[in-house]
Amino acid sequence: MILHGYWRSSAAWRVRIVLALKGLTADQVPHHLRDGGQRAPDYLALNPQGLVPALQTDDGRVLTQSLAICEYLDEIAPEPPLLPGDPANRARIRAAALVVAADIHPIQNLKILRRIKDFGQDEQAWARQVIEDGFNALEALLAKTPGPFAFGATPTLADVCLVPQMTNARRFNVELRWPRIQAIEAECLKLDAFRLTAAEHQPDAE
Amino acid sequence: MILHGYWRSSAAWRVRIVLALKGLTADQVPHHLRDGGQRAPDYLALNPQGLVPALQTDDGRVLTQSLAICEYLDEIAPEPPLLPGDPANRARIRAAALVVAADIHPIQNLKILRRIKDFGQDEQAWARQVIEDGFNALEALLAKTPGPFAFGATPTLADVCLVPQMTNARRFNVELRWPRIQAIEAECLKLDAFRLTAAEHQPDAE
Repeated sequence: MILHGYWRSSAAWRVRIVLALKGLTADQVPHHLRDGGQRAPDYLALNPQGLVPALQTDDGRVLTQSLAICEYLDEIAPEPPLLPGDPANRARIRAAALVVAADIHPIQNLKILRRIKDFGQDEQAWARQVIEDGFNALEALLAKTPGPFAFGATPTLADVCLVPQMTNARRFNVELRWPRIQAIEAECLKLDAFRLTAAEHQPDAE
Repeated sequence: MILHGYWRSSAAWRVRIVLALKGLTADQVPHHLRDGGQRAPDYLALNPQGLVPALQTDDGRVLTQSLAICEYLDEIAPEPPLLPGDPANRARIRAAALVVAADIHPIQNLKILRRIKDFGQDEQAWARQVIEDGFNALEALLAKTPGPFAFGATPTLADVCLVPQMTNARRFNVELRWPRIQAIEAECLKLDAFRLTAAEHQPDAE
């Protein structure tokens, strides 16, 4: 498999975590986001959205959208499961993942922040507000779930999304005040699958 | 089951479509978004994100995030499948759904548009740009998939997201110029599950 990514992309990091949790490997091809590498014609032919990550499977099919890629990896390598439990529990895990992947990250990504800056507004403050709103909700959603991970004894798709978003929060100087989320992150970072897949360990890290 | 929604919410419409496709029913409880009904303490206790939809299951569990709810319904009522095919095909259906549910809709929802307007900017133009960017990518992603639906002979989670977003596009006067997407929408709207679940047929429609 080939993973098209970028060291600092939190969506690409999600996929790197899942590959590591599953014991799978993929060749990494970096696309430099700040230089517009993801808008190059060759890459747009692979992913018309011009976003990372994209995963090329061994039979050459191209998969996009990090959550869809994570679920694909969970289906081809079911252990350990990213979505354990009954359908309602699986739905709650997916919902927590979507709070990050739909309601935080796309609204504070580079493309949107550039538009906010073009309005003459403080794009850092915009990002902080989006992250704080999302984390306030996520903290409440996770208040009653069993620990030490977001949904119990093993990491799930929710943890996979939460950890990269926390790193993102620090980049924007968000004041961290979510004890449950912070405890989950600390637990995850005890695992190589989360720690060694972080941005700074990637071959294209600057 | 109880579906907490709002007639004009395209995310709630997704769930209404899936319920109808599966032959399931749910009591509908409306929360008026423009009046802030989704921010009322009673509703925040159910869904701390203050967003619709939320689904209360028969045993009282509360599920949030429309895509997570749709996948839940697909798991408890597998026929007809929302995600047919092998894992790679399922991933491509999920990716198309996420283009809408993560990269279009959350960036042009009411909350974000109010912030753009507060900046003294044209929030309608913002919404149009977000929808056009997303639909350009979606049209390319769907260019080579078999019709008449987004992924073949039956509607999938991709169609479930696409149709409400097209209605949203019209609300913002987006010039429709995506022949594949428009043909998919026309095919979907031949089905009662898409047509009769539209905003204007809901009990709280104004």
